[in-house]
Amino acid sequence: MSRRILAIDPAIRNTGFAVLEQRDGQRTPTPLAYGTIKNKASLRQSACLLAITEHLREVIRTHQPNECAVEGIIYVQSHRTAITMGAARAAALIAAAEAGLEIREYAPKRVKQSVVGRGAADKDQVAFMVRALLGLRETPDHDAADALAIGLTHLTESSSPAAKLNPPASI
Amino acid sequence: MSRRILAIDPAIRNTGFAVLEQRDGQRTPTPLAYGTIKNKASLRQSACLLAITEHLREVIRTHQPNECAVEGIIYVQSHRTAITMGAARAAALIAAAEAGLEIREYAPKRVKQSVVGRGAADKDQVAFMVRALLGLRETPDHDAADALAIGLTHLTESSSPAAKLNPPASI
Repeated sequence: MSRRILAIDPAIRNTGFAVLEQRDGQRTPTPLAYGTIKNKASLRQSACLLAITEHLREVIRTHQPNECAVEGIIYVQSHRTAITMGAARAAALIAAAEAGLEIREYAPKRVKQSVVGRGAADKDQVAFMVRALLGLRETPDHDAADALAIGLTHLTESSSPAAKLNPPASI
Repeated sequence: MSRRILAIDPAIRNTGFAVLEQRDGQRTPTPLAYGTIKNKASLRQSACLLAITEHLREVIRTHQPNECAVEGIIYVQSHRTAITMGAARAAALIAAAEAGLEIREYAPKRVKQSVVGRGAADKDQVAFMVRALLGLRETPDHDAADALAIGLTHLTESSSPAAKLNPPASI
């Protein structure tokens, strides 16, 4: 049996996404797709949200993931930012829920801890580790790297006995 | 020519919606539909968001509005609330954007000022005024009344020369 994870790092202008496949007996998961959904600064918020949902819907149609993991929102500078972050996250959740995927949420710190070994790792370190762990030829951009890291975290944590003590939230 | 407004007061558990039709020469708009999209407390956030989008999509399909007005978020107690409010609002925006509707945003104060004449009006007063203005047989529940009030505000403001000085945000 193989697992296919859709991992998402939602943001209104740059949403990172990745689809990782983990086949039984395979040590390293295969990235089937990853990238960043970019919305121009000139685009209205409603159009950005629709673009996120529609792009992810297309990724789901193409790669047929059976699980979903998203980055949780922890630190926010202001209420305005929180509203926008919540909105981008909603656009991602709607695409995943529509496809009937179970969705798990991982705090950014937990993702960094899992992939880099340090909860305070910076974005370059995350991208570097993701590249090394997946054997990619190129270093992915920060948003795609974050999504790949979320997918890796989900695969590690959902198969680790220790993680069962502190399971990720289901949203 | 007639205008049909889809008005939405988004919230994760209780989203008020209304469709108001204003025909040329008609003084009072006709409410074609209004109600509250209720999500049970036991429902996961992703399922709530999807339910909001899907329900509004159905309302749009049935009543074919050609404009949309939503309540803006102004006051929030915490970042957590802001994230959830932003998410519910996104679910509404996605349904409207998908249908190609132009979306205007009105601050709650502006809606109360327009419908009741007082920016600090309470929910009972809004419901009472909405009932009177539209000649409804029953007082609508608070969430539906808020949506009807947003629709009325949009109709008033978009045809008033004074409002042109302070146009609502297009989102």
